[in-house]
Amino acid sequence: MTPFKLTDELVAEIEQLIENQKDTTLESLLEEVHYADVAEIINELNEDDATYLIKLLDSDKTSDVLIELDEDLREAILGNLSTKEIAEELEELDTDDAADIIAELPEEIVQEVISEIEDKEHAKDIVDLLRYDEDSAGGLMAKELVKVRDTWNVLACVKEMREQAENVTRVHSIYVVDKDDILMGRLSLKDLLTAATTARIKDVYIPKVDSVHVNEDPEEVAKIMSKYDLEAIPVIDGIGRLVGRITIDDIVDVIREEAEKDYQLAAGISQDVEADDSIWDLTRARLPWLILGLFGGVAAAVIMGNFEEMFRQYTVLFLFTPLIAAMAGNVGVQSSAIIVQGLANDDIKGSIGNRLVKEMLLALLNGLILSAILLLFTWFWKGDFLTALAISTSLIAVIVVAGFIGTFIPLFLDKRGIDPAIATGPFITTSNDIFGILIYFMIAKLILGI
Amino acid sequence: MTPFKLTDELVAEIEQLIENQKDTTLESLLEEVHYADVAEIINELNEDDATYLIKLLDSDKTSDVLIELDEDLREAILGNLSTKEIAEELEELDTDDAADIIAELPEEIVQEVISEIEDKEHAKDIVDLLRYDEDSAGGLMAKELVKVRDTWNVLACVKEMREQAENVTRVHSIYVVDKDDILMGRLSLKDLLTAATTARIKDVYIPKVDSVHVNEDPEEVAKIMSKYDLEAIPVIDGIGRLVGRITIDDIVDVIREEAEKDYQLAAGISQDVEADDSIWDLTRARLPWLILGLFGGVAAAVIMGNFEEMFRQYTVLFLFTPLIAAMAGNVGVQSSAIIVQGLANDDIKGSIGNRLVKEMLLALLNGLILSAILLLFTWFWKGDFLTALAISTSLIAVIVVAGFIGTFIPLFLDKRGIDPAIATGPFITTSNDIFGILIYFMIAKLILGI
Repeated sequence: MTPFKLTDELVAEIEQLIENQKDTTLESLLEEVHYADVAEIINELNEDDATYLIKLLDSDKTSDVLIELDEDLREAILGNLSTKEIAEELEELDTDDAADIIAELPEEIVQEVISEIEDKEHAKDIVDLLRYDEDSAGGLMAKELVKVRDTWNVLACVKEMREQAENVTRVHSIYVVDKDDILMGRLSLKDLLTAATTARIKDVYIPKVDSVHVNEDPEEVAKIMSKYDLEAIPVIDGIGRLVGRITIDDIVDVIREEAEKDYQLAAGISQDVEADDSIWDLTRARLPWLILGLFGGVAAAVIMGNFEEMFRQYTVLFLFTPLIAAMAGNVGVQSSAIIVQGLANDDIKGSIGNRLVKEMLLALLNGLILSAILLLFTWFWKGDFLTALAISTSLIAVIVVAGFIGTFIPLFLDKRGIDPAIATGPFITTSNDIFGILIYFMIAKLILGI
Repeated sequence: MTPFKLTDELVAEIEQLIENQKDTTLESLLEEVHYADVAEIINELNEDDATYLIKLLDSDKTSDVLIELDEDLREAILGNLSTKEIAEELEELDTDDAADIIAELPEEIVQEVISEIEDKEHAKDIVDLLRYDEDSAGGLMAKELVKVRDTWNVLACVKEMREQAENVTRVHSIYVVDKDDILMGRLSLKDLLTAATTARIKDVYIPKVDSVHVNEDPEEVAKIMSKYDLEAIPVIDGIGRLVGRITIDDIVDVIREEAEKDYQLAAGISQDVEADDSIWDLTRARLPWLILGLFGGVAAAVIMGNFEEMFRQYTVLFLFTPLIAAMAGNVGVQSSAIIVQGLANDDIKGSIGNRLVKEMLLALLNGLILSAILLLFTWFWKGDFLTALAISTSLIAVIVVAGFIGTFIPLFLDKRGIDPAIATGPFITTSNDIFGILIYFMIAKLILGI
């Protein structure tokens, strides 16, 4: 397969074709292009050109394209379509994607769009899905699935499945339900292929099936599916009725988004932004953390102001404040990152106390090695052993405390039900800067006997 | 589904049962437990108890358990098994997992283990897979797949598939090949269910199929599969022959590992470590970055040493060095994180020049806002407008330069084919600390006319 490559030339060519309204050329040019690639092209166009293309191409392709587009552009395009045109797109989509799009529409047209959907069963399923919180298994699931009754035989089952399968893009498992729609088990396609046609479903199905509750957290669903290597999982309601299913491709998106969010939080970026967002969006995501850092810096300055007398005597101590602050920040970020990742992977076992002791031993080991290097350097550079000792001893204390803070804060937040990822990055760096500098001066003061 | 919960009590109970050699109790206790959960239990046991359980339980379960275990423990357990016992485990595994385990075995027993595998076809497939680099599509793929000839009819195809499917855990697609095993297209199970039994494969198959080359980078495979929402992708060799397939569950692991690696690099952790690793492993992963930070701090101290005279006059300048260094670090990490993430998602379009201009405009905007706050604070605190102006003006310059470095370095590394993720975290923080302090002092000197 030669992978599709988006080029400026291709985008320019398409813009040219749109301007000249070369509809048939455009259609044949894009016919063989995968919808995900068409979406990449359209993302590069302005609103009018994008709308033009969406209106031009077949709705079985454009519906998939719409799902892949950047959110802002999709909203703009939908704003240019009539309710009937939107309904046509939704008609082609799986219920979960259709529900996601409806959730983005202005409230006043939602009712109209839904009433324009011709397949009433499809419309009903979409409306069902709108009830669920976006951030739950219900918000992630689709209504498309293949289910059979436990009392049927394999032949009847295959016949029924053929009909149901028409509406299901990918058949993973066949779910077995009783007369009240209660999920009883599953049947793999493979089993169906290898079973005798006269066998009864209740004799060949697997009564054990993993499922998640409709209110389950998407991250938890992702953990279950990747731990048990599932490619689809049925979703049940409070009394065990089968209400939908979640497929692994949606879970891949959940995992990616979660990883990106944690990464951005660790880097001090508070909203989901991309490199191509506007300067204004990027500023809003970044400025709050920088202001936090600024306040931290001001606090450090005020603390240092209280030690001005000491510094007039021992100017050399001043020279090492950036080093102390940087080391406190680095150790804190390392410790918190390990904890945040461990919590995300459910790897953190045992008590908080043990964890803290281990982290402090680790910090002590690192601190001793680093301090030895610093002691030798400072001693040779400034020729004063006592000052060198004061600085290096402080460094050990600062590193141990930074490790403690970096370990304790995410564990504490997690216990309180707060996402520990917010405790990484600027938050830890800033608090450790302040603590680090304070500890540094106090210990230096003690050792130098000022 | 009540999710499995690993408790200390359960582990203690199992240790007790092992000690008393209550084999039947152990077997019945663990019979209904999913292999991923059994692995979690065994991860908590010592080497002897773990080996005991692996030898006790059925190899169709323990083989899957082995794959899920922590690498150190797995190696220890395999060291306690005979080559025959290892071969029995491999017999039960898919070829990709079996090849992964063989790659971990001591070289001197590999040949013996392979010769003990009874299913010679399976052994041959495993040996085939050992040829590929672990970090390539070939190293990720399995040999288990269902393929049919283009000349068959649907009935013959279903018959053949039933046989092949016995060995394939999950059938995603049926691949269509010609007489030389060249991949021609695919057939979905759904199509097969809905097609007439007399239809010929060549008339019903889909001639378009995405595939990857056996040497493709796993991250690239992950991008392709998640972009095109694929659940399995066939792998072809240099002349287009079908040699294996990669399934989405392996890709989920690739995505997770990649995200964890980037996250750890951003936090200054250089190897793949977990919270539960030994203090020694954790130190080795963390110390190098801390030493880098230490050298950065020493460099900053030396630079500041050259400005000692200025500081005797304007001590207040000294108080703000931690603030300046922290802001330089924070801005640099933010900028580099956005770029690293954009590069990972192929979102970075346009020239480096444009990107740098945008980032510097962004930094200028942030810098102006932050400096205004700092100016007011310092002016009121110290009552000296000129000093306040010097500090705030420097802050703008420092932020702009930090944004520039944070943007430029990852883009530069990426152009050179080096993973830009190493440029985040301590690397950016440390270099920005040094540049930041240098710029701060030079500008302050200029404005204050010292």
